Amino acid sequence: MVELYDDERLDYLLADETMKIIQSPTAFAFSLDAVLLAHFSSIPKKRGKILDLCTGNGVIPLLLSKKTNAEIIGVEIQKRIFQMAERNVALNDLQPRLRMIHGDLKEMQSTLDQSAFDMVTCNPPYFKTPSATEHNHNAYLTIARHEVYCTLEDVVKACKRYVRPGGKVAMVHRPGRLVDIIEKFRKYRIEPKRVQFVYPKQGKEANMLLIEGIRDGKADVKILPPFYIYEQDGSYTKQAEEVIYG
Amino acid sequence: MVELYDDERLDYLLADETMKIIQSPTAFAFSLDAVLLAHFSSIPKKRGKILDLCTGNGVIPLLLSKKTNAEIIGVEIQKRIFQMAERNVALNDLQPRLRMIHGDLKEMQSTLDQSAFDMVTCNPPYFKTPSATEHNHNAYLTIARHEVYCTLEDVVKACKRYVRPGGKVAMVHRPGRLVDIIEKFRKYRIEPKRVQFVYPKQGKEANMLLIEGIRDGKADVKILPPFYIYEQDGSYTKQAEEVIYG
Repeated sequence: MVELYDDERLDYLLADETMKIIQSPTAFAFSLDAVLLAHFSSIPKKRGKILDLCTGNGVIPLLLSKKTNAEIIGVEIQKRIFQMAERNVALNDLQPRLRMIHGDLKEMQSTLDQSAFDMVTCNPPYFKTPSATEHNHNAYLTIARHEVYCTLEDVVKACKRYVRPGGKVAMVHRPGRLVDIIEKFRKYRIEPKRVQFVYPKQGKEANMLLIEGIRDGKADVKILPPFYIYEQDGSYTKQAEEVIYG
Repeated sequence: MVELYDDERLDYLLADETMKIIQSPTAFAFSLDAVLLAHFSSIPKKRGKILDLCTGNGVIPLLLSKKTNAEIIGVEIQKRIFQMAERNVALNDLQPRLRMIHGDLKEMQSTLDQSAFDMVTCNPPYFKTPSATEHNHNAYLTIARHEVYCTLEDVVKACKRYVRPGGKVAMVHRPGRLVDIIEKFRKYRIEPKRVQFVYPKQGKEANMLLIEGIRDGKADVKILPPFYIYEQDGSYTKQAEEVIYG
């Protein structure tokens, strides 16, 4: 049994109740964004190596572990949250296939092999400049949500550094940053190949962006069918249910 | 009355039958793309100056003339098609508010004032390299559809040259070129602000892209609700009907 600290709680990872995850409302709790990214990314099914940057409590490695036999490494900069991720791997008996590393994605060169991963996933901080109103007074959440320790460019640069040529990089972000993301992907020669916009419901603007690129890929991007979260009556759509309930 | 040449025919511009347009199946006939661009673009309603590049038979200026009192200039490189555009302006009694110019968008500096337009619209050639199979044996259609006389970069550069700071640039293109378009928009400081993807029907990938940027605008793009053309049964959606039937 693993220990829980402070306000941590033990949740089921998905509604199918096959996996558990330690969360904390004040340190790190995963969101739908991570679940959608895990669902969207074209991960290698049988073998290979996957790297998840900004892994938080390891939610994406845990979700991916159900869909692939690949080795998965997660990197988290915040020690307390990294320790949650480590316990989450143990809790679900996923070591040594899943491994968590405490470190800064900008400075992992001595720890991680370059150009070695078949896929790099990332659910990075979304907000550019912490403004007085947006800035969260909780340091854990601020670091997870704002570009305090890493900018979008740092993240894309790190993806490029660790993905192999021909390997994939998948990211979830806010649609408002689409232009920045595409600019940085191109700058680091990760050519966007698949994009999906997530809409809260029909008739609304997109509020989430899923993007996957291939290192040194050929220019030609597909815009997948829209993904809707809610029906007009506020219940989950069938496609959202399939992802959330596993 | 205007004269018709060769295989030209006189069509209604929209189903509301208020305007007519000269078309030719072998020289130039407008597509839904032009209609959607005219509908999508945030044109100045009362006054102002609009430039339409790659205007073809003048379909976008004609459509916009119903929604604005602005002056509209169209530029077309192919003389025969430019002459269709001129006759279309006369046919609908829209001179002198609408004016067509025969010229190459790369070399209009002596004819058009720079940084002078409130909006520039463009439905440019979509295809990058005319390949043996894609290349149309009809020269008129090849020039309209392939980057023979102007590349995407030439088009975006011309948009930037003629739009005023703070003015808008709206374009329709293929989604596969999204990354190229965003890269060129940024290069010429036209910041994408509104993007809408057009899907043939629910569950399919997008097959058209509408994008609008602001010269020297602030980075933050909105992804509008998807636009669907057909219902599952092949009939037009309500939103498509509203655009097509005016």
